[in-house]
Amino acid sequence: MTDKPLEIAILVCPGFMQIDVVGFHTIISMIPGANVHLAWKNRDEIAGAPHFPTRATTTFADCPKDLDVLFAGAVPPEVMEDAETLEFLADRGSRARWVAGVCAGSLLLGAAGLLRGYRATTNFQLHDRLPLVGAIPERGNVVEDRNRITAGPATGCHEIGFRLVQDLAGDELAMIAELASEYAPKPLFGVGTPELAGPGLTARTLAFSERLVTGLGHSAGGRG
Amino acid sequence: MTDKPLEIAILVCPGFMQIDVVGFHTIISMIPGANVHLAWKNRDEIAGAPHFPTRATTTFADCPKDLDVLFAGAVPPEVMEDAETLEFLADRGSRARWVAGVCAGSLLLGAAGLLRGYRATTNFQLHDRLPLVGAIPERGNVVEDRNRITAGPATGCHEIGFRLVQDLAGDELAMIAELASEYAPKPLFGVGTPELAGPGLTARTLAFSERLVTGLGHSAGGRG
Repeated sequence: MTDKPLEIAILVCPGFMQIDVVGFHTIISMIPGANVHLAWKNRDEIAGAPHFPTRATTTFADCPKDLDVLFAGAVPPEVMEDAETLEFLADRGSRARWVAGVCAGSLLLGAAGLLRGYRATTNFQLHDRLPLVGAIPERGNVVEDRNRITAGPATGCHEIGFRLVQDLAGDELAMIAELASEYAPKPLFGVGTPELAGPGLTARTLAFSERLVTGLGHSAGGRG
Repeated sequence: MTDKPLEIAILVCPGFMQIDVVGFHTIISMIPGANVHLAWKNRDEIAGAPHFPTRATTTFADCPKDLDVLFAGAVPPEVMEDAETLEFLADRGSRARWVAGVCAGSLLLGAAGLLRGYRATTNFQLHDRLPLVGAIPERGNVVEDRNRITAGPATGCHEIGFRLVQDLAGDELAMIAELASEYAPKPLFGVGTPELAGPGLTARTLAFSERLVTGLGHSAGGRG
């Protein structure tokens, strides 16, 4: 341990899923002195999905080279295949203390070569694609394998947040973070996994997610 | 029911808590054709707390007069007392089909006179202040009284989202939304309420929240 402040970088881009990153952003920021960056190619205004204007706080070029956490949530298909983005992730991920992904963000890390041979998860709609990027699929809200940590659902970004506060700043602050944000959710229906929802609702939700993703390039919810 | 699209307005402002609004924003946007606005005095760039650049998509002046949902999360103390903001909330809230608040957003609605005589909740750090704005305090993740719906913790904004999708668009879409976002959280420690945390951790968390709020005007977590 040194007194060097923690450096955390969260990928943003046009069409990124806000809901996948904001919980993590807020929780990891509870570590005193942590530098939390939103990283993209440039600092022009972009819109998260659903439409939420924002702007990176650092560029790929200016982003610290040695990160304590590299974090990605879901991004649109064109970013999943973007060479400049994949190169940035591969570079920072090769040295980062932790590499974290939520939802399709896990597959993005995988596309950058960062999950080869690692156990990982993603949202249930995309779970069967994990082997395509060399990951070993595992179901679970949060899956941790060495310094890779991935989550399926959007709220998984909170849970990755608590776990990394624990690792980077200790149990006490992590527990305070869980209570300060009153993280004791009560689902309205209790159908938040395919197992809980059953095959009928799951099939209809997959169809709904597919329509969202292929619809207006407006990827709310389905990839969340 | 008419074919008029739903009009949803979410308050944003310098220092608003992103984590209190993004879950709601994403989930309510799953209603086909819903117009989801981020409303503030102007459309200049602002930063949520912790630092997250954004910008309103509509001004108070241009925001639709008759809303299906008026929604507010936590905002800094100066906005809690800002006459123009309170006037906007009081006006839109007087006609809105639903008036929704999360964390200190509940107290903000109360300051605008919208909770007088209504059962309501807010985050545990502020719960004892509810009577100051004429609300009837009730503990619970989500408290609903007629067309007022309030939540304590930040994840409560997801839960308000599912409930209002249910009311505005039906059970089926609300259940799909819960599954599409895999809302089946698993807390790391299970200390997400004062009851679960016990008095020692609760006292230390209150002290931590107080330091955050009175610290750098940087209100991460404690008001989340």
